[in-house]
Amino acid sequence: MPITGTQLIGRQNIPGTGGEFHAYNPATGETLPVVWRGASAQQVDQAVKLALDAFPIYRETSLAQRATFLEAVAQAILDLGDELITRTMQETGLPKARLEGERGRTVNQLRLFARVVRDGDWLDARIDHALPDRKPAPRSDIRTRHIPVGPVAVFGSSNFPLAFSVAGGDTASALAAGAPVVCKAHPAHPGASELVGQAIRSAVQQCKLPEGVFSLLAGPGNELGTALVSHPGIQAVGFTGSRRGGVALMQAAAQRPVPIPVYAEMSSTNPVYLLPGALAARGEDIAHKFVASLLGSAGQLCTNPGLIIALDSPELDQFIQIATSGVQAAPAATMLTTGIAQAYQHGVDQLLAHPGVQTLARGQDAEIAAPCQANLAITTAQAFLADPDTLGAEVFGASSLVVRCTSTDEFLAIAQAIEGQLTATLHLEPGADDALVARLIPTLEVKVGRILANGFPTGVEVCDAMVHGGPFPATSDGRTTSVGTLAIRRFLRPVCYQDIPDNLLPVALQAANPWNIHRAER
Amino acid sequence: MPITGTQLIGRQNIPGTGGEFHAYNPATGETLPVVWRGASAQQVDQAVKLALDAFPIYRETSLAQRATFLEAVAQAILDLGDELITRTMQETGLPKARLEGERGRTVNQLRLFARVVRDGDWLDARIDHALPDRKPAPRSDIRTRHIPVGPVAVFGSSNFPLAFSVAGGDTASALAAGAPVVCKAHPAHPGASELVGQAIRSAVQQCKLPEGVFSLLAGPGNELGTALVSHPGIQAVGFTGSRRGGVALMQAAAQRPVPIPVYAEMSSTNPVYLLPGALAARGEDIAHKFVASLLGSAGQLCTNPGLIIALDSPELDQFIQIATSGVQAAPAATMLTTGIAQAYQHGVDQLLAHPGVQTLARGQDAEIAAPCQANLAITTAQAFLADPDTLGAEVFGASSLVVRCTSTDEFLAIAQAIEGQLTATLHLEPGADDALVARLIPTLEVKVGRILANGFPTGVEVCDAMVHGGPFPATSDGRTTSVGTLAIRRFLRPVCYQDIPDNLLPVALQAANPWNIHRAER
Repeated sequence: MPITGTQLIGRQNIPGTGGEFHAYNPATGETLPVVWRGASAQQVDQAVKLALDAFPIYRETSLAQRATFLEAVAQAILDLGDELITRTMQETGLPKARLEGERGRTVNQLRLFARVVRDGDWLDARIDHALPDRKPAPRSDIRTRHIPVGPVAVFGSSNFPLAFSVAGGDTASALAAGAPVVCKAHPAHPGASELVGQAIRSAVQQCKLPEGVFSLLAGPGNELGTALVSHPGIQAVGFTGSRRGGVALMQAAAQRPVPIPVYAEMSSTNPVYLLPGALAARGEDIAHKFVASLLGSAGQLCTNPGLIIALDSPELDQFIQIATSGVQAAPAATMLTTGIAQAYQHGVDQLLAHPGVQTLARGQDAEIAAPCQANLAITTAQAFLADPDTLGAEVFGASSLVVRCTSTDEFLAIAQAIEGQLTATLHLEPGADDALVARLIPTLEVKVGRILANGFPTGVEVCDAMVHGGPFPATSDGRTTSVGTLAIRRFLRPVCYQDIPDNLLPVALQAANPWNIHRAER
Repeated sequence: MPITGTQLIGRQNIPGTGGEFHAYNPATGETLPVVWRGASAQQVDQAVKLALDAFPIYRETSLAQRATFLEAVAQAILDLGDELITRTMQETGLPKARLEGERGRTVNQLRLFARVVRDGDWLDARIDHALPDRKPAPRSDIRTRHIPVGPVAVFGSSNFPLAFSVAGGDTASALAAGAPVVCKAHPAHPGASELVGQAIRSAVQQCKLPEGVFSLLAGPGNELGTALVSHPGIQAVGFTGSRRGGVALMQAAAQRPVPIPVYAEMSSTNPVYLLPGALAARGEDIAHKFVASLLGSAGQLCTNPGLIIALDSPELDQFIQIATSGVQAAPAATMLTTGIAQAYQHGVDQLLAHPGVQTLARGQDAEIAAPCQANLAITTAQAFLADPDTLGAEVFGASSLVVRCTSTDEFLAIAQAIEGQLTATLHLEPGADDALVARLIPTLEVKVGRILANGFPTGVEVCDAMVHGGPFPATSDGRTTSVGTLAIRRFLRPVCYQDIPDNLLPVALQAANPWNIHRAER
């Protein structure tokens, strides 16, 4: 399938009229084929209007029809074959195995949402039957289902060019909810984005859905995103990216004449607590696994372990020694873009310039256009608590800061001082560490979306119980998750039908229950 | 129980230090006993800090314990006896029967949330069991429950001094979620508020809960509310009131360093469609019931029928004639405050000054401090569509505007032109009106929270399937409801526990399922 460099607006390929841009290879710096021109405000309007046209039809597709569509999207992505993997490798510098794994995750995620759509629990159908004889007043027949909020704007992420981009978790959950999607491709991988966009479009056509169910826009700067979020037809926003970018979208959405929800997954340092019992029992093993978690994907993961918190002890010294060796030996890695590499370098420089921070190890350097030289540093709990905003700030990339504590009270104080996080990790030894963990959990659970034990936060399972969310600034809305089946709730709202004749009710609420879904009845 | 005129901060009664204010009788204008002084910023801080202290304990109360507490609050309100009704009548001008009914609603609402707490579905507990042998990678044990977001600020409404005030739907659902509440009393009924606040406090003590579970602050102006919403310890806001007030809170919450959700139920004109078949079959009956719905509580209900949309016809003329007589005969009513009465008069004046609007009827006038003279006016669909913002704006009180249409296309156009609403009503004749209704519903359901047939939107049932919400400006967040059991979701967020040892898991997720709740397991 050729990459055209055009905007995919419904079934049309329309050249942009804005500034020119192109992809480049972050390992070599070389320019990749195909030149795009950015989408215009008029093209945003065109895509959103098509989405609005599609909305009443798409949201009333049957469960089977919508699930089949999601499965068709998954298959169409697989049908892109190696071309997708090759182009994505070129555009992102990510290795083949990682991208093949990510494609599998993307496809499985679409299939998981097909299952969610089919079972219909997402409708949260509720029926309070009429009570005509109730005193002092009769009760009406009252029924509720959930409907999608309307067209959704999805912003592709830089770091998951497949699983959090054009057909990623936001798009899959919005489409599952019955919401048309207007996606903004991440400008660092416009080719991979267009290929996936073409796959979604082919599934739309194959399933005979209205063309406006999906459009893909591309542009180099912030104007396109602002135009999209400001368009009155857009009813919600899904975003994965930087804190600055997410907060800008939150503000744009709050300032609209009709404000809309923004689901932005933004920034997290993912504190990892090494409890004394665990350090004593298997500190060496934890150290090796920590280094692997830190270095994977050049640390460009929202759940990268950016803070290690431990009590001063010989076991901690041993942990630090192993981790230091591991980081020193780390080959230079290719980051996603030169901009991200520069921001990483800037973040590391700032961290290391802090008077309370000492360098433990830097990884290898190499001639790479967008290089990541790993970083491990150390500070004291006292220094951290004196300046948690600076020392707790996310450095996006393979950088981590060990916080040496002199008391368990400092453990608690750090948990209290940190901002909202996606995750917190506890390396614990059952029994030995219980008392301390029992004190930590109540503090951590109000700060994070996920608490995990004896593992690392990277590698987020896509399942029913996953929460990839957390209080601000981890996300814009700590009541939600962007990974797992609960993500569908972000794009739904309840509508109540009172005493509506059965033949005029939506299928989900009709007396015969034609879809055979679970309904809470009283 | 004496009314003290103090701030109820945890178990203490503390005199305010701000401006003096007092309640007055809106029928007579007379000043009512007890002088309050407004809560200071320091008192806000004191109440929120107590709430933060209470939060870790209160949120981990057992289901039985928390349900028992809600029932104790209900009983303590009943135990206030006639004193509550008498004082509330004096402060609001609302009649005894209405207030006794509202007290019943308030008490039943608390008991309903006790049932919700006990059955535990609100936890939305999910368990994805470990799959150690899964290829290519094993799956961890992943469990999720919902926890409350943190202390909640509740703003008492003016128009439901019991059911949407100190122990109303927002407080009941927040307490059910496990969130401590800091309530701001509505300054128009501080005495009723304090009595109910004392009842909640006595239940807190009786149930041996931390005192910070509930505090009640009072103040005359906007400073108190702003201080409360801006306090970093507050994590969500419940509000019922004007659009201007709600939007101000939304903006204050969005501008915090850590933004928080605001659930504001604000403004709605509640369009009522009279379909031709229904008008022909029973226009007279509909007209009588419309007048009753319009005039009840001096029209001071969020679901008051403010717009009547119908096709030009002899049947419509008859409807108008009956409604006109009904409104002309309406005795002058007492509004809640002189401010509300002035705003009502201003709203009616503006409406009647519009060149496209003709007066049909004004109700009776009388010597009342806060009078409501009912109003019925008429316009054409053409005029409405030329200026939907003005003619569709809520006039809070017993005022309604008939929109005469010349075609069913105008029906649809009006549905498209209106802003977000709490409700839309369809008076329809099964069969005869089906085709038109089937066209209206898809347009209306994206604009409203509840669509009802052959009734009036006033009289909102408190049940599992109720949605008292709707897109902006009906509310700040169309994904939620402020009435019915779904209201609890507003104050919850999911937290995920991965590979946490069983003895360290929250009770709701432990292997033995000690609370015997429903959990979605895979």
